[in-house]
Amino acid sequence: MELIESHLIDKSICPVARTAQVLSGKWTILIIRDLATGVKRFNQLERSLQGISPKTLSERLRSLEEEGIISRRTFAEAPPRVEYSLTEKGYDLVPVIDSMRNYGKKWLCDDK
Amino acid sequence: MELIESHLIDKSICPVARTAQVLSGKWTILIIRDLATGVKRFNQLERSLQGISPKTLSERLRSLEEEGIISRRTFAEAPPRVEYSLTEKGYDLVPVIDSMRNYGKKWLCDDK
Repeated sequence: MELIESHLIDKSICPVARTAQVLSGKWTILIIRDLATGVKRFNQLERSLQGISPKTLSERLRSLEEEGIISRRTFAEAPPRVEYSLTEKGYDLVPVIDSMRNYGKKWLCDDK
Repeated sequence: MELIESHLIDKSICPVARTAQVLSGKWTILIIRDLATGVKRFNQLERSLQGISPKTLSERLRSLEEEGIISRRTFAEAPPRVEYSLTEKGYDLVPVIDSMRNYGKKWLCDDK
């Protein structure tokens, strides 16, 4: 009985908690935000995300790629060109981020 | 310069990250969900949130009250009646939770 109950609770919590988890990484939201306006190269992202180290950016991009949120395309040029874009799974996060941002702005953060 | 940059980044992240934080507690989402349909008494919540201990429920309710997400009203009856409801700050979380749930259901959780 207890097993069934905690299973039901987990089922109900899971989607919200997992989404919160995906969006909790410091740079994740900003990367998705940048890619929501179109395909970007590595150094465009690096310039936009002021303060991020190339190592951290690489790691975040790889992890978002593994989660299926962004896709990476390499072009055989010299020097090689690498472009990043949102997948459908990534684009679907944009309205979620917007609703969380609106809530946070209204209720949780200073409007400085 | 670095200070300014990290301040800008924090400002951009803050609202989303703080909202994710508010919603990350295990029972929070379910309590808000229950109260979204109207005022509830303590034991109604306890029955609805199968598996929660009275102690945990008290703690969660107190913490949500401190965050201004729910309000608590006591009636001088015998036995005393205590009712909980969402504040405006609490109601505003419902669409956020819904968008996160929809995303999570579509992309992150099994549809069992």
